[in-house]
Amino acid sequence: MTAATPLSTSSAHSHLLIRRLLEAGLRRAPEQEIVYADKRRLSYREFGARVGRLASGLAALGVQAGDTVAVMDWDTHRYLECFFAVPMMGAVLHTINVRLSPEQILHTINHARDDVILVNAEFVPVLEQIWSRVDAGKRLVLLDDIGAPLQTALEFVAEYERLLDTAEPEFDFPELDENTRATTFYTTGTTGLPKGVYFSHRQLVLHTLAVRDALGGPGQGRFNAGDVYMPITPMFHVHAWGLPYVATMLGAKQVYPGRYASERLVDLLERERVTFSHCVPTILQMVLDGAAARDVDLSEWTVIIGGAALMQSLARQAVDQGVDIFGGYGMSETGPVLALAQLQPHMLDQDVDRQVEIRCKTGRAIALVDLRIVDDEMNDVPHDGKSAGELVVRAPWLTQGYLHDPASSENLWRGGWLHTGDIAVIDADGYVKITDRLKDVIKTGGEWVSSLDLEELILRHPSVAEAAVIGMPDPKWTERPVALVVLKAGQAADAAGLRTHLHQFAVQGLISKYGVPERVVFVESLPRTSVGKLDKKSMRVQLNDLQGDQR
Amino acid sequence: MTAATPLSTSSAHSHLLIRRLLEAGLRRAPEQEIVYADKRRLSYREFGARVGRLASGLAALGVQAGDTVAVMDWDTHRYLECFFAVPMMGAVLHTINVRLSPEQILHTINHARDDVILVNAEFVPVLEQIWSRVDAGKRLVLLDDIGAPLQTALEFVAEYERLLDTAEPEFDFPELDENTRATTFYTTGTTGLPKGVYFSHRQLVLHTLAVRDALGGPGQGRFNAGDVYMPITPMFHVHAWGLPYVATMLGAKQVYPGRYASERLVDLLERERVTFSHCVPTILQMVLDGAAARDVDLSEWTVIIGGAALMQSLARQAVDQGVDIFGGYGMSETGPVLALAQLQPHMLDQDVDRQVEIRCKTGRAIALVDLRIVDDEMNDVPHDGKSAGELVVRAPWLTQGYLHDPASSENLWRGGWLHTGDIAVIDADGYVKITDRLKDVIKTGGEWVSSLDLEELILRHPSVAEAAVIGMPDPKWTERPVALVVLKAGQAADAAGLRTHLHQFAVQGLISKYGVPERVVFVESLPRTSVGKLDKKSMRVQLNDLQGDQR
Repeated sequence: MTAATPLSTSSAHSHLLIRRLLEAGLRRAPEQEIVYADKRRLSYREFGARVGRLASGLAALGVQAGDTVAVMDWDTHRYLECFFAVPMMGAVLHTINVRLSPEQILHTINHARDDVILVNAEFVPVLEQIWSRVDAGKRLVLLDDIGAPLQTALEFVAEYERLLDTAEPEFDFPELDENTRATTFYTTGTTGLPKGVYFSHRQLVLHTLAVRDALGGPGQGRFNAGDVYMPITPMFHVHAWGLPYVATMLGAKQVYPGRYASERLVDLLERERVTFSHCVPTILQMVLDGAAARDVDLSEWTVIIGGAALMQSLARQAVDQGVDIFGGYGMSETGPVLALAQLQPHMLDQDVDRQVEIRCKTGRAIALVDLRIVDDEMNDVPHDGKSAGELVVRAPWLTQGYLHDPASSENLWRGGWLHTGDIAVIDADGYVKITDRLKDVIKTGGEWVSSLDLEELILRHPSVAEAAVIGMPDPKWTERPVALVVLKAGQAADAAGLRTHLHQFAVQGLISKYGVPERVVFVESLPRTSVGKLDKKSMRVQLNDLQGDQR
Repeated sequence: MTAATPLSTSSAHSHLLIRRLLEAGLRRAPEQEIVYADKRRLSYREFGARVGRLASGLAALGVQAGDTVAVMDWDTHRYLECFFAVPMMGAVLHTINVRLSPEQILHTINHARDDVILVNAEFVPVLEQIWSRVDAGKRLVLLDDIGAPLQTALEFVAEYERLLDTAEPEFDFPELDENTRATTFYTTGTTGLPKGVYFSHRQLVLHTLAVRDALGGPGQGRFNAGDVYMPITPMFHVHAWGLPYVATMLGAKQVYPGRYASERLVDLLERERVTFSHCVPTILQMVLDGAAARDVDLSEWTVIIGGAALMQSLARQAVDQGVDIFGGYGMSETGPVLALAQLQPHMLDQDVDRQVEIRCKTGRAIALVDLRIVDDEMNDVPHDGKSAGELVVRAPWLTQGYLHDPASSENLWRGGWLHTGDIAVIDADGYVKITDRLKDVIKTGGEWVSSLDLEELILRHPSVAEAAVIGMPDPKWTERPVALVVLKAGQAADAAGLRTHLHQFAVQGLISKYGVPERVVFVESLPRTSVGKLDKKSMRVQLNDLQGDQR
């Protein structure tokens, strides 16, 4: 033989299918529990039968392989049933983001070409608003916790529980090609319409196995078969980070909380003895405060934080309450998990401050993830904890692009790498730390200066209430940072004093000296987006106008 | 959409390659150790560089993608380097079974079309015997622990350590198709020439992830990053059950013992604090006795037993010495792991005898394995712990067939399932127990009676020294069991007494009443194969001759 000969795809080629994850869990723990808040308890055995019933019921409604089945629900056992039954039939599960505006939801329903929508009674009013503009042919199934008659003009082809009651638990799930599309979900960019990402059976199975590997073991930062799992990032958001698939494969006890309310979350944490969750920082804050107020013990709770940077102050509060907390990194486009910031065993000897610092990093790439930080020419940047570059990745579970959107897809995938748009450093231990978004980083004199770092340092000045730093074009240095500052009440504008304040950090090596802005603009308030993020795009426009005026 | 549409293979399709396992280990634990007996200690970082050097060195010798590189060595860090470097280059690693006869080794070298053979100095005499009949063009690389000049007429193109010394640690490993063949290995059937099985990158990666999943967690029956791994089934035998790949991905400390000698194994277990191994029952017995004689503590040692049935007496001895022991199941053809017999948490409350009984089972199917027991018509047999059927399997890591042997391959894969030739029962907990080989099971009156079960019960009779039961054709019942018995010295032949002895077990439900043989033949000795197994084929011939005489 003179060339590498790929093996043929024969009967020995066993496809990577979502049904294998369910089968593993059913074999391991048929009597294990799946709990929906205070409403329902199922064994895995019953759950498995309900997955079969759901598939039979959907088939009876006409759902076929290749169809798209959408869900609008809070986190429930029903949603988990859809996670399995819909892709296992060869259909595509569209997890509708119920936090989007009705107009955006309308766009995603039509854009994803949903055939059937399973809708929680709570979201029926949303559908009523947009139904006249929904493309023809979509059928509705009602998900109802309440049981009270629903006042609506919408027509339902079935109610979920009655559909299951009358359907056969046996369904002849097809042996699919592993590259069959399994799920789709819409991301919410800061601009434009939501964009659809999508994942195949193969991708979800490999994500499950790699996340399981990253979390398997004794000690800190772990998720094993004996744990009790409760998601606190929504199931509509990249399959709750894929953890329900991991939990099911493991045969772990699972608790689905419905809508996130602080009281209920703390109740369930305590009552069901939850030991493993994942959430965003704001929800963590809510749970920590709720648990503290009621003196609930969280010392058996491990939680991955993602969605936004984990601040050291919050992480410290969690650690002080006994929580095993660490950061994770990923995006809707990446399936999502790419990296986790668990401590390594030798770090458990370090002091709590240092541990907290590591827990707040973006983490180390998990198995099968190929992760680089690169400059504008795709050259690798040193892993010294200081040199910043754009994070680009390859892994077997990244979206191939945006649904029906070739232009955006081409921008996402360049040169065989998915471009995250995040700026990061990697330290000698291999831990990644996101420092900025590419669009917000300031490129000056051949260096990349983090706007987030600068903002944090400016905020340490006693007279500053709010701060934003943006890069403005500069003929000599490419860009120069400009600081926009809102002062606390009664404080005087002192640009020189602020620059002196920043110079001291440059001397300490916390920022480059090129990072200290010459220009400080004092403003009444900073423009923010609808979700409260700094709106740097509109700041750039404002500053441009200002410069135009000054010329 | 009206049909399930597979996604195209685009840049987002990240292939499952063995290099990703090495990269994961290097990221997790660059300073972790890999130890070769008392001869060498490497860090993962050094190991990674040596993998690069080996690839550079082999490339300098002319090795290309698609070539086959064979190894004859004991268990060493060198072998582990070959596990990675050779497939990562796109070449095929042929792990030569050094326990075969020189004639069989000759067959495998020519049949696998080896291009380069890396040979430990100890095996040079074997090659000398057969070299004149080895096909032209094969080149030899010497693996040398001794350093003394070698007296041989064979020519070597390089010595391993000098090859690495002069080669670059950087090698541009290609991005291969995941279905590229990675390894090949020859099984030793009881009859005929050894047959080649083969595995792709994809198969080895998926086997690694699924075994990792099955072993991840706290408590009993586990293998995690903090463990210290030492194989005690040879690396030439289905990649030491794939565990070196798991260990490397985890970044666990690894200890390679060289040739298996009881003294050295016990030394290494103690000195390197080994916590995880796998071996066959005979080696376990040797290690247990060696450790007991020297009062070595084995209470931190977990070990998977495979290759032959784990007897309860041996398992009990291991448990009494503090060893966490359990059975595993697989074959060369299956990559190999299909099932593991770890205890479930609730079983830890049961008494030791019951625990030992479970530990000695064949185990529960691991994730992604689809395992059935079926009758002659491929109908599923009940999972009641009593009904026996042939074990047939699908999984993503089974050999596609036998190398250059379509006839045997067709017999292995029938109806989309790999036929193991093993007869098994599955209990309500999902634990599989192998009861017989298909060729030895007795099919009588529509029931399958295990020859092994019958033999074990006959052996309980005080006057019996040895026993074998075989099925002989019967016009009414298809087959009937015939017992061949060797009596202890001075005991009288009493067929009726022996049948009464067996009837009592039929009354207890331990065997079917149809299983009690009418015919008991007393013989001087039982024919055995060269490796000491009962030779039932020749017994059948002898009994046939005997029946012919009687007619």
